[in-house]
Amino acid sequence: MPDASSLPPLRIAIAGLGTVGAGVIRLLDTNRDLIAARAGRGLEVTAVSARDRTKDRGVNHERFSWEDDMTALASHDDVDVVLELVGGSDGPALALSRATLASGKGLVTANKAMIAHHGLELAREAEAKGAPLKFEAAVAGGIPVVKGLREGTSANALTKVYGILNGTCNYILSEMEATGADFSETLEAAQRLGYAEADPTFDIEGIDAAHKLSILAAIGFGARVDFANVRTTGIVAVRAADIAQADALGFVIRLIAEADAQDGTLLQRVRPCLVAKDHPLAPVYGPTNAVVAEGNFSGRLLFQGAGAGDGPTASAVVADLIDIAREEVGAPFSMPVEQLAPLGPADSAGRLERAYLRFTVNDRPGVLAEITAAMRDADVSIESLIQQGRGNADGEVLVAMVTHEGPESSVAKALELLDGSDSRTAPPLVLPILPN
Amino acid sequence: MPDASSLPPLRIAIAGLGTVGAGVIRLLDTNRDLIAARAGRGLEVTAVSARDRTKDRGVNHERFSWEDDMTALASHDDVDVVLELVGGSDGPALALSRATLASGKGLVTANKAMIAHHGLELAREAEAKGAPLKFEAAVAGGIPVVKGLREGTSANALTKVYGILNGTCNYILSEMEATGADFSETLEAAQRLGYAEADPTFDIEGIDAAHKLSILAAIGFGARVDFANVRTTGIVAVRAADIAQADALGFVIRLIAEADAQDGTLLQRVRPCLVAKDHPLAPVYGPTNAVVAEGNFSGRLLFQGAGAGDGPTASAVVADLIDIAREEVGAPFSMPVEQLAPLGPADSAGRLERAYLRFTVNDRPGVLAEITAAMRDADVSIESLIQQGRGNADGEVLVAMVTHEGPESSVAKALELLDGSDSRTAPPLVLPILPN
Repeated sequence: MPDASSLPPLRIAIAGLGTVGAGVIRLLDTNRDLIAARAGRGLEVTAVSARDRTKDRGVNHERFSWEDDMTALASHDDVDVVLELVGGSDGPALALSRATLASGKGLVTANKAMIAHHGLELAREAEAKGAPLKFEAAVAGGIPVVKGLREGTSANALTKVYGILNGTCNYILSEMEATGADFSETLEAAQRLGYAEADPTFDIEGIDAAHKLSILAAIGFGARVDFANVRTTGIVAVRAADIAQADALGFVIRLIAEADAQDGTLLQRVRPCLVAKDHPLAPVYGPTNAVVAEGNFSGRLLFQGAGAGDGPTASAVVADLIDIAREEVGAPFSMPVEQLAPLGPADSAGRLERAYLRFTVNDRPGVLAEITAAMRDADVSIESLIQQGRGNADGEVLVAMVTHEGPESSVAKALELLDGSDSRTAPPLVLPILPN
Repeated sequence: MPDASSLPPLRIAIAGLGTVGAGVIRLLDTNRDLIAARAGRGLEVTAVSARDRTKDRGVNHERFSWEDDMTALASHDDVDVVLELVGGSDGPALALSRATLASGKGLVTANKAMIAHHGLELAREAEAKGAPLKFEAAVAGGIPVVKGLREGTSANALTKVYGILNGTCNYILSEMEATGADFSETLEAAQRLGYAEADPTFDIEGIDAAHKLSILAAIGFGARVDFANVRTTGIVAVRAADIAQADALGFVIRLIAEADAQDGTLLQRVRPCLVAKDHPLAPVYGPTNAVVAEGNFSGRLLFQGAGAGDGPTASAVVADLIDIAREEVGAPFSMPVEQLAPLGPADSAGRLERAYLRFTVNDRPGVLAEITAAMRDADVSIESLIQQGRGNADGEVLVAMVTHEGPESSVAKALELLDGSDSRTAPPLVLPILPN
């Protein structure tokens, strides 16, 4: 066990002084003694780098040495660990990360896109150099779920990992639920309040959640990170009417990222789903994140907390730094890269699930018969169906149904049969129902 | 990083072959390859000890060497770690644990009572010998919350730690909620179903939860374990009528273990509390456990899962073994024992809280005036009050109220003023309301 009085401090370089970088400096200042006691040694920032040296960041960084060339931090003599908070899957963040590990220094990053795209390469380099590589903050903000899967559930073969990994989408969906407002006006409100970015594409299209899911899946299933094969559907098509219908049926709508490994394949999907109100993920409101891991011995575990924000993200980053100070340097993905299984993408067509289907159609005779005939011909069994009265200025009618459990391919076939029908006013929406 | 192909296996002795011991053997058999990949080496049971060698435990243990004298496991040459699953705060479990650490071997235990009473002594010995001491399974079954607080929230000063730590009580309270049945019949049902022991005292009096809380508080606040100063109230006095009243007011009743550290003192309490239905702990049903940790940077984190059972407990035990195999040997209580603060017990008299008060009184004139006068004289401000109509065969009337936030001492004073009143048919019940 390290003795705090005798060990030299862990020397840290920070690349990127946005809100998270400033938060890390504030955290290290605020909790300094506590951290030294837990880490067994001090944690000292020695150097920083960012685009603009003069910008006011609310923390004093003049006491640290400044580096204009970020990548040069990797070769500083007085740096043990580089903290990469620049962002972006490639470019300067990746160059700095490669240089850091190549020099045998530790790397801590909050960069989900970079780990989703280049995590295996970086982990290989870290393993070759015996250098720590940690990325707790890349997934689910302040929730220690990377550690939870890497170490907490390490005795288990997981049957599935799923959860709410994008705070922006969860904020929008739970606000739509609370207010009855439609997607676009809720997104605008979220942007005004800082819960959504000016360009919200990565969030609302599910790409951010897919980055995080691919990282959790790799750790949880001992599989190679495979971001390219995450199938992703965003929340743009979810209407206020869908949320109202779901509510009437006993469900809420959440963007669910889910992964499982079966028969040598890995299924990874991000989709808006109906979640029963008594499921542990249903009461997750606002920008909160939550992850469920189901192990073959642990049973169902839930990890929940703030999915973003400078404080929670700094908390995750500094927990990684403390682990490194304690010399707890395990394999970044829980097992060495060459032992991670190269699982191929799963074909889910035969998977059984219940689904919510919503059609928006012209209000004219025969439309319901057309839809139900397609269901019959595709062998989709309907559990309940609601046709919503007119009232829509466009003469549009909404037909919503919940299916019995059946193969995903049957629903796809039904939609195919209805494809091109001139009664449709918008593409149909299919939302799977998350099993309880 | 250890290379699984070259490192010798971690050799484990198991003391105690009850359901958890058998579960550990089954887990190590079932997930053998996965565990070796994550641990970087094999985990091999080499020796076992239990009271009766011939008893059928559903797993084959004849392949391991047998030791009649449990304590002798500590001196086996082919043992690196002893797994103590005997139970009991003192006696054979403690003797074995002391001998194990004294010999420099690692110790993994699921024994909450022993860690609550002797954890500091054992941790001192472990630190002196550089031997690992781990006890994830001692708190909240399969939920990795010891690791969560020791490492996941390590960057934070925690403001509080609280949760549902006893599955038996949570099963009973949530069953009473679901069925409307009273305490004693629900306890009997729980005993029939195996959710409560034949002698349920440790569970229903809150002692089991207090053991666990004292361990979490030590880790979370960097304080010395202080089980003796956990103030404990059990659930025996909670009636079906209280649960019904709480429901009408928008609350459920849960046995809450809570700790905080303020001004150099540690407050540790286990009490049945009213929990608002939109609080993350309200939807925790049955034998599930859940822990909330609030950090000064992380914000509120929730860890939830199975609080007991052979599978979840084995999952926690083997996660500790994998950590040891990875040579991740931090301080058992997150910082060295001599750095843990010797916090004195807190005086909570001045703490502000809302409370639910229930009086059972004879149905005669003037009783309500007597109660409300005592409230006035003690300066307790009443938010709402319900007097339940007669209907009780004993001529008993129930008066339930919720107070505004006020000092705990005021409620205590009001009860004192009413003490000895001959209108009372049973002692009054005070349930604090958990802040949201």
